[in-house]
Amino acid sequence: MKEDEQAIRQVIATWMRASQSGDIATVLTLMTNDVVFMVPGQDPFGREVFEATASQLGAAGLQIDGINDVVELQIQGDWAFTRNRINLSITPAAGEPVQRAGYTLTLFRKEGDGRWRVARDANLLTLKS
Amino acid sequence: MKEDEQAIRQVIATWMRASQSGDIATVLTLMTNDVVFMVPGQDPFGREVFEATASQLGAAGLQIDGINDVVELQIQGDWAFTRNRINLSITPAAGEPVQRAGYTLTLFRKEGDGRWRVARDANLLTLKS
Repeated sequence: MKEDEQAIRQVIATWMRASQSGDIATVLTLMTNDVVFMVPGQDPFGREVFEATASQLGAAGLQIDGINDVVELQIQGDWAFTRNRINLSITPAAGEPVQRAGYTLTLFRKEGDGRWRVARDANLLTLKS
Repeated sequence: MKEDEQAIRQVIATWMRASQSGDIATVLTLMTNDVVFMVPGQDPFGREVFEATASQLGAAGLQIDGINDVVELQIQGDWAFTRNRINLSITPAAGEPVQRAGYTLTLFRKEGDGRWRVARDANLLTLKS
């Protein structure tokens, strides 16, 4: 169990670090093929839309920095969920950074290769005024 | 498994019906004691805040109608999750109805008494313009 918990925390940390350095290929290894991302005001989307959006933002020179605090982590068998408190600073190539903050509810699945991956993610971050 | 799925669908249907009729006592029986609700732009909250808010809205004569479509339902042991597509029409005592629509990601837990209850809920509904 302790090992699973550390593996999941590692996925979250690697995800954040890879996002910050624009390493989309690494982020894609951390999600299941059937992953579903949910954000307010938009239809749920999967891996392909995630990749296309991340590539566009990277090409536009957008820089992401932030911290991800794991508020809760529970594991049962090959399923786990976390609640994370996230603070992001998003800086366009030309312009002032904007802050986004809030929580996520994220489901992880341990797959056949023994690796935990993000399977479902509800992202409730909003623009901080 | 089929029985668990039916029980979870029943919880969702009862929740929606009880909400529409302002029967907060019934809704409270459908959530775990440690339930956590997550909505955009607000800190997560639990059972007490849910009850207080629902009571205030009921006292203000607010009427809720809507449909809840279960888009996905997966069960593993005593855990389950659903993704729901929800359309709500919310009518104040005096005023025009507003529409809210979007998705939820909801975790259920089967408790010691054999009943499935909502344990974690991320609600991504937004105002429809």
